[in-house]
Amino acid sequence: MEVRTILTPAEIASLPGSDLRGATCVVFDVLRATSTILAALANGARAIFPMLTAEEAFALRETAYPGALLGGERGGVRIDGFDLGNSPREYVPGVVSARDIIITTTNGTVALRACAGAGRVLAAALVNIDATAEFLRSGTREPGPLWLVCAGTGRDFALEDGLAAGALATRLEDAGFRPDDATRAMTALYERHRRDLAAALLDSANGQRLVGIGLGEDVTWCVRESVLCEVAVMEKGAIRLLGVAGRQGAEP
Amino acid sequence: MEVRTILTPAEIASLPGSDLRGATCVVFDVLRATSTILAALANGARAIFPMLTAEEAFALRETAYPGALLGGERGGVRIDGFDLGNSPREYVPGVVSARDIIITTTNGTVALRACAGAGRVLAAALVNIDATAEFLRSGTREPGPLWLVCAGTGRDFALEDGLAAGALATRLEDAGFRPDDATRAMTALYERHRRDLAAALLDSANGQRLVGIGLGEDVTWCVRESVLCEVAVMEKGAIRLLGVAGRQGAEP
Repeated sequence: MEVRTILTPAEIASLPGSDLRGATCVVFDVLRATSTILAALANGARAIFPMLTAEEAFALRETAYPGALLGGERGGVRIDGFDLGNSPREYVPGVVSARDIIITTTNGTVALRACAGAGRVLAAALVNIDATAEFLRSGTREPGPLWLVCAGTGRDFALEDGLAAGALATRLEDAGFRPDDATRAMTALYERHRRDLAAALLDSANGQRLVGIGLGEDVTWCVRESVLCEVAVMEKGAIRLLGVAGRQGAEP
Repeated sequence: MEVRTILTPAEIASLPGSDLRGATCVVFDVLRATSTILAALANGARAIFPMLTAEEAFALRETAYPGALLGGERGGVRIDGFDLGNSPREYVPGVVSARDIIITTTNGTVALRACAGAGRVLAAALVNIDATAEFLRSGTREPGPLWLVCAGTGRDFALEDGLAAGALATRLEDAGFRPDDATRAMTALYERHRRDLAAALLDSANGQRLVGIGLGEDVTWCVRESVLCEVAVMEKGAIRLLGVAGRQGAEP
């Protein structure tokens, strides 16, 4: 099976729907949207609805999910009128358990929505990288290619998303996946930094930005490989946990 | 000085001209356009004119440069009616010396033209990576950022262009250049493969494709680091050699 990595927001913006049919997309926005989505689901949230704009988020709550929480950011900070920002540390069980959450972020939810036409879409991050790899290796896959989608930051490639793509590709290397050039580059990146991912993330553009606005603890939260064993799948616009067999009850 | 790497053709297509003013762009299409341009110039060609289409190439020859040679490819092979393909091994002194060359390729000339609004544009490749680095370190630079532009292949990131960007960034590391996330990733890629670039290029998507159409020798030609000491600069649509002080008379 061919593995292709989408490195940049510009590629995401030009993703042709026709290419996605039959494909499996794994979307990474390590700092922080997909890490936060996984935190919320692991802590008992029922479903996450990724939206493109705050207006869309308000409208969905009003028309379909009056009990939902609104979460997300613009410029890294909580949106006016929203219940939650985009820090995984906010999404604790007492806040999110059994709740639906409507979320919009600058890059992560855009990437998730761009992949909506794929045969299967996973939201993944470093925190559940082993579980995601295990799911992909298990054979319950779409027949088409595997696309690793790096959400990026603004218009730019984001180091932490590339590291996560490389971390996943490395775990699939012996399972018959054929990496494209971009995937090979991300594997090299991961190999370079795997022994000290925290240093790499804190030194990345996003890491520096989060430290600068007092959210350095989010970086150290998101960098922990495989502390969660959940797999998150998006179907019909909602992200939910896939079967939680083997769940270790991790407390993020 | 900030160093930014443009990884993908999609980013090149959305390059905003306003960002480029005051910037220095270094364009890489290692397999094969920029390697071929350097071969031609090192072998005595007067100027190279990068064109977007074959029609544009024919028109420029007819209207302005009746004595020019036409070179380039589509799908890796020479264009009907053109004098030369896109193999650096065709551009020998007996063919190109003192000639103007009008060239069009699938990605390389597109990337060069996309950068035309920058303060300075270099065409570079592995074959002149030390010379290009030395030029950039010398301080005769634009005041703005340095952009390393990977031309790619079709719509995709190309490993060999990323390797060249990484090779250049590595050579600038101690000279006060601040790499962005994409540049850091390419530095990691180069460090991973620098001891055997030939193996990496032959295993890349482009390398495999060229081997498949009988052009494997082009790959081994293009992978040789710093066999040329020329620096190629594009001004007003024409690529020419910059001063050739220290030229060792390399025979490509």
